[in-house]
Amino acid sequence: MAKPKKQPRPKAVTPKGFRDYFASEVTQRTEMLRTIAGVYHRYGFDALESSAVETVEALGKYLPDVDRPNAGVFAWQEADEEGKGDWMALRYDLTAPLARVYAQHRNELPTPYRRYAMGPVWRNEKPGPGRYRQFYQCDADTVGSASMAADAEICAMLSDTLETVGIPRGDYLVRVNNRKVLNGVLETMGLAEGLEARDAVLRTIDKFDKVGEQGVRELLTTGRLDASGAFIDGVGLSADQAEPVIAFLTSKSDDAAATLANLRAAVGDSRIGAEGIAELEQIGALLEAGGYGADRIEIDPSVVRGLGYYTGPVYEAELTFEIFDEKGRKRQFGSVSGGGRYDDLVKRFTGQEVPATGVSIGVDRLLEALREKGRIKAEEHGPVVVTVMDRDRMADYQAMVAELRNAGIRAEVYLGNPKNFGNQLKYADKRNSPIAVIEGGDEKARGIVQIKDLILGAKIAQSATLEEWKERPSQFEVARGDLVAKVREILASQDEQG
Amino acid sequence: MAKPKKQPRPKAVTPKGFRDYFASEVTQRTEMLRTIAGVYHRYGFDALESSAVETVEALGKYLPDVDRPNAGVFAWQEADEEGKGDWMALRYDLTAPLARVYAQHRNELPTPYRRYAMGPVWRNEKPGPGRYRQFYQCDADTVGSASMAADAEICAMLSDTLETVGIPRGDYLVRVNNRKVLNGVLETMGLAEGLEARDAVLRTIDKFDKVGEQGVRELLTTGRLDASGAFIDGVGLSADQAEPVIAFLTSKSDDAAATLANLRAAVGDSRIGAEGIAELEQIGALLEAGGYGADRIEIDPSVVRGLGYYTGPVYEAELTFEIFDEKGRKRQFGSVSGGGRYDDLVKRFTGQEVPATGVSIGVDRLLEALREKGRIKAEEHGPVVVTVMDRDRMADYQAMVAELRNAGIRAEVYLGNPKNFGNQLKYADKRNSPIAVIEGGDEKARGIVQIKDLILGAKIAQSATLEEWKERPSQFEVARGDLVAKVREILASQDEQG
Repeated sequence: MAKPKKQPRPKAVTPKGFRDYFASEVTQRTEMLRTIAGVYHRYGFDALESSAVETVEALGKYLPDVDRPNAGVFAWQEADEEGKGDWMALRYDLTAPLARVYAQHRNELPTPYRRYAMGPVWRNEKPGPGRYRQFYQCDADTVGSASMAADAEICAMLSDTLETVGIPRGDYLVRVNNRKVLNGVLETMGLAEGLEARDAVLRTIDKFDKVGEQGVRELLTTGRLDASGAFIDGVGLSADQAEPVIAFLTSKSDDAAATLANLRAAVGDSRIGAEGIAELEQIGALLEAGGYGADRIEIDPSVVRGLGYYTGPVYEAELTFEIFDEKGRKRQFGSVSGGGRYDDLVKRFTGQEVPATGVSIGVDRLLEALREKGRIKAEEHGPVVVTVMDRDRMADYQAMVAELRNAGIRAEVYLGNPKNFGNQLKYADKRNSPIAVIEGGDEKARGIVQIKDLILGAKIAQSATLEEWKERPSQFEVARGDLVAKVREILASQDEQG
Repeated sequence: MAKPKKQPRPKAVTPKGFRDYFASEVTQRTEMLRTIAGVYHRYGFDALESSAVETVEALGKYLPDVDRPNAGVFAWQEADEEGKGDWMALRYDLTAPLARVYAQHRNELPTPYRRYAMGPVWRNEKPGPGRYRQFYQCDADTVGSASMAADAEICAMLSDTLETVGIPRGDYLVRVNNRKVLNGVLETMGLAEGLEARDAVLRTIDKFDKVGEQGVRELLTTGRLDASGAFIDGVGLSADQAEPVIAFLTSKSDDAAATLANLRAAVGDSRIGAEGIAELEQIGALLEAGGYGADRIEIDPSVVRGLGYYTGPVYEAELTFEIFDEKGRKRQFGSVSGGGRYDDLVKRFTGQEVPATGVSIGVDRLLEALREKGRIKAEEHGPVVVTVMDRDRMADYQAMVAELRNAGIRAEVYLGNPKNFGNQLKYADKRNSPIAVIEGGDEKARGIVQIKDLILGAKIAQSATLEEWKERPSQFEVARGDLVAKVREILASQDEQG
């Protein structure tokens, strides 16, 4: 074998747009996924885990028309015997894999097939502040049901989920819209499918939550000067022509009946429009019967996210409380979840139209919201650290941690070089340890151990006088046999004090 | 925008070597990961989650010396402005990312850094039966500790973990070996580092658990006819020269002291060999003091897996019970976990040697073992299914499932087309539902519901006489207000009967 060439030292960096998650960042996410899975499961959804890798062909949307299909996904070509195999890619969401799974296993799966899935997805996009190229999604979908009860259920479940993870009622709102109503509006405007102006109107509507009513009006007609000073060409409609779109987007009223009446006016006598309104009515009635009032879920035609993608009802969960952004400005926290009905995803594979509806929760955003509201602590305590005063008595120290662990208490022996005792306490500090245990030769001979309450110690160090500090009220001497009991007592008192 | 070209229908298939996991396959793994994380956490390890993607440079072992580094990993080249960016790859284990993370963040991390990590890893290898290209690992490592107490702790934790997930004592064994002892053996044989014969001997030792003592003897000397009839060339040692290797591999005795004495003879006066034996002695003493006897952990020089990779102690957990393989032959279940000390992984990045030791559990293998032993059920019950007798009363049915869910009972309304009632019961059957609830117009008028015990029903269908069957002892009529109480009662009786 040839000797490997000497390589320069590699750089220890995460790839651009990726990051590492440490300690409570990981465990809090795991806990949230578990909580959400609990709600989804209770609603009757079954778990599904597909692999991170799919064929580019199955992912669909990103099918390559150039040599390398790297628009949006991370993709590579498999090396087969001739060196050129299939193109593979990392999944960019959990919906495309669901469509593939359902098409592949449909003969064995129940219909409707109700599944939840959670895990990372990957986007080959330019990363920005707080935007990473790998992030978690947490989805639930019902495949094979055309019933509006499936959509209403997803909305109710979304509301339940948010409250279960700790977002109180009043701090969020699930908003429902319907693509068919918009289709009705476009129909009354004479914008049939396939027309370029129709696509332009759809793209403009998508900007509604950024540019507002007047912005959309300008963009639909003669164009608009954006915030950066650039002029954005308009679609070229007359003011009258643009009016139905504006009427649709602003048709929300204080009560659902009035909103629906406004929508009826906006769609005129369009059949598809009337169908969309009937769907919204059905969803509204089911939710009302279930006790989900407008304080939790409401019909809101200004929801435009995903209208281009979905084929029927569209829903979005928004957190309504205000936060300060990185520039210190107040703003609403915004969307943490979206979903809707997409009746043609499976058709790509089978030719058969299969109705489906579902939701995706952005778990990392939701965690951010809970941290923002102080509902989960940013950091958790480290382990109790048993220090090493005498390196030949490692077995004694291991026995102490074994006792603590058997009592369910997180604990470890200091495993670094024990020579410098200061380093051991620095380590305990860096681990955010609640307690350090000390047993030198003298203590051993007397059958006792020293137990330091590090939380109390830190508090005293901040405020105590020299006399108070000298009394060391945060250090306790107890019989070796009382180690576990005393540690437990201190941990309990720390918990009480928050 | 140009219209997309019409594409042929994509094939709905998982990429070769990947698979989908359904329902309890997913939840049982999640539960096991949670249990293992609980043990690791109690031992003082902190969670770490690095991204699935690393630069090929950071992964190291697979640095490309050809145009495309696809040996063993899934890799691709990023497209930067000039079209040619860094090579990226999916991680192939959790240790290489740990080395990168530690090197990158070492100034902020405590030393020792003790972390656990769990998640999928990817191997670009030829898939085989039961061998997939994505699988889960579950690791714990202590970085920055040279103490044998760190190694002993990992062995103890591995033993605790196996028992906690449900492998009883006696059904597993953690076996410990040491690479330095082998180095001592090679030194006494005059095989210095860098010699080709030394590498050949190392590769041969790696086959010990496949070919056994006589096989290794042949391979070290004149060669061997393997099972397929092919002749494998030998290393070319004389029988005398090969003897120390055989002595090393077969030095295990019934008690640790005798094993260590055998090893002492095998390494002669090699300093590195003596060091390795002293390390094994220390680990043995610490484990004995902790009460981990030879029924759980033992020193066994025949452990060869990973000896080429690790630099000091090596450990492996083996399940010792017998199973039948796919050909109906009895065999030991085998290894579910391995680990050891690797003191030079971080050095690649920083130039500094950082001692580290850790373990990796193959979670999918461990799950397979528990299923094999009947310790976890292959399937779980589906939701209670509320059937739809009258599609205009969807709100009534939703109210029933809401009541059930609020009582913590998994439940759903049938969301398919309700026209054919038989399909609804078929659906409940396919979901493995324990109970179906029926409320037609007649029941509604009388204020009652019908509750079918589907488990009991299936049992009766197998064995009952026509008379018994006609009595329908598995169907209950209760007042609508008693729905939740009756469902709960039936579920409890089903649980009792297993």
